[in-house]
Amino acid sequence: MIMTSYTMSRFLLFSSVGIGSYLTGSYVERNHKKHEKEDYVKDLLTQVYSKPGLPIFGTVSAASPIPLEEKSTVPSNVSRIGQIMKFGFPGLDNVRSYDDYVLSYDRRTRVAHWVFEHLTAERVKHNDAVDRSKCDFKPDDSIHPFFRSLNSDYKGSGFDRGHLAAAGNHKAEQKHCEQTFFLTNMAPQVGVGFNRDKWNNLERHIRKLTKEYPNVYCCTGPLYLPRKESDGKLYVKYQVIGSNNVAVPTHFYKVVVMETADKRLEMEAYVLPNQKIDDQTPLSMYQVPPETIERAAGLLFFDKISRSNLSKINGKKV
Amino acid sequence: MIMTSYTMSRFLLFSSVGIGSYLTGSYVERNHKKHEKEDYVKDLLTQVYSKPGLPIFGTVSAASPIPLEEKSTVPSNVSRIGQIMKFGFPGLDNVRSYDDYVLSYDRRTRVAHWVFEHLTAERVKHNDAVDRSKCDFKPDDSIHPFFRSLNSDYKGSGFDRGHLAAAGNHKAEQKHCEQTFFLTNMAPQVGVGFNRDKWNNLERHIRKLTKEYPNVYCCTGPLYLPRKESDGKLYVKYQVIGSNNVAVPTHFYKVVVMETADKRLEMEAYVLPNQKIDDQTPLSMYQVPPETIERAAGLLFFDKISRSNLSKINGKKV
Repeated sequence: MIMTSYTMSRFLLFSSVGIGSYLTGSYVERNHKKHEKEDYVKDLLTQVYSKPGLPIFGTVSAASPIPLEEKSTVPSNVSRIGQIMKFGFPGLDNVRSYDDYVLSYDRRTRVAHWVFEHLTAERVKHNDAVDRSKCDFKPDDSIHPFFRSLNSDYKGSGFDRGHLAAAGNHKAEQKHCEQTFFLTNMAPQVGVGFNRDKWNNLERHIRKLTKEYPNVYCCTGPLYLPRKESDGKLYVKYQVIGSNNVAVPTHFYKVVVMETADKRLEMEAYVLPNQKIDDQTPLSMYQVPPETIERAAGLLFFDKISRSNLSKINGKKV
Repeated sequence: MIMTSYTMSRFLLFSSVGIGSYLTGSYVERNHKKHEKEDYVKDLLTQVYSKPGLPIFGTVSAASPIPLEEKSTVPSNVSRIGQIMKFGFPGLDNVRSYDDYVLSYDRRTRVAHWVFEHLTAERVKHNDAVDRSKCDFKPDDSIHPFFRSLNSDYKGSGFDRGHLAAAGNHKAEQKHCEQTFFLTNMAPQVGVGFNRDKWNNLERHIRKLTKEYPNVYCCTGPLYLPRKESDGKLYVKYQVIGSNNVAVPTHFYKVVVMETADKRLEMEAYVLPNQKIDDQTPLSMYQVPPETIERAAGLLFFDKISRSNLSKINGKKV
């Protein structure tokens, strides 16, 4: 799938006019159960979603500048969007851009398809001027009320409002941190043993990558994976919570690309089950081939990078 | 959500360049379980997806012609697309246009989000030159192989390859009929008692509407509805079939707008469970408020028509 930055900019432009419907407007106005085994995820994804022999798709395309005449109607953070989305959009359904991250919203599940971030050592370092405790979880008014998740949906559900773009990744400005608290950036996550523990470990691992790599690109999202039941058939099953029926994903993924100082590219891809995870299990147990996540999610990650141009995937030479 | 035809045309244009990624290219190359009660659907949708008191969204916007300089790169059937989609796109995820219908493909479930048709008496009348038996079910190569459903996925599954845009609605040309056999237009449907019976009855009912109304616009798609389980919680559960894990929808919807000779607009909206249905149950039992389908599907139907501009919904004056 070839898409130049120019085409993408045009798309974003038209999104803001009509398609995404609220992109520019809302941007301006927005100033205010358990599985049996630890290695179940890897087995399941590999068995259900890998098809050896199929080609891995991917293209490399050159970035093109935005023509001058369009600049006036493009959101003011469009160059930041270009940085964040440098290596391609995983999909284009209901894209929303915030000051420091970009997401695609699934109106049916009321949970994002994907959330994209660009991390650098400077952007993730501690900033005394930014106070997370002053951030409030808030509905995203850019989403039509039929499809908008609310704080009341989570209340009493037993699930955390789990960040997809981690608040700790957006400490350059108070506003950036606050914008990670939009409910469009949340998914129902098991609290103890997951959101507050293993998932948090994964977030910290990815932040730490910025010490070694000048640029880290992180894509995060939910999965709704099938399981074989006693009748021998595969079923997707997930709970929905609250009056807006917000889906509780069975799993979450992160696909990360790290760019070295000499512009080599490496990738890591993780899938964790949305459940209490034993603290002793190393994160590497949850590494999976990225194409298995693509098949399961219906998305293509970093599709401007040919997989053969990656020097490492999950720590192994390609 | 305001979207002019102009904006939409521009979107389709850019789809064809990059986003939908294959629209123009493929277009040119493409020449070749049971629920407890009958009224369960209505109850479920009304209880789970209706929110009395919330406004019904909808706008009316004027159609604008496509600027001349763009015509060259627009697919040759763009004016037919404009006819079919006259009253708005329900969503914009992976839109594909064929000669006589338009669909949006869900890459995660491998089943369309929605399929849109424009029916007239002339277009649906029997044509001896069109032979359905010469049509073959075929994969749609415009879909990336990771997300493409295949005939082998359905084989031995026990489910029919059920048309979303009915073959019987596209009899003006052999090619139109053949294009309804792309697997992008199929969903796994229960055969006896559903696809071959009640669902077929609904398709015939909608075709018959063209005798009374000069223009009939029909939107069809799958639903994945939650059910309450014994633990008191709501769960979405659906089977997936074949090596591509094609989702088996729990229900299917049709939302239809009929335009009278004097340009009044009426709407009918149906949800049928994907199961054997008693032949004696009248179709009217499956009529539901259209906004309940919108909430469940994550889509907005006919959003260029204000609901208050409809003279009837499900046979009742608005």
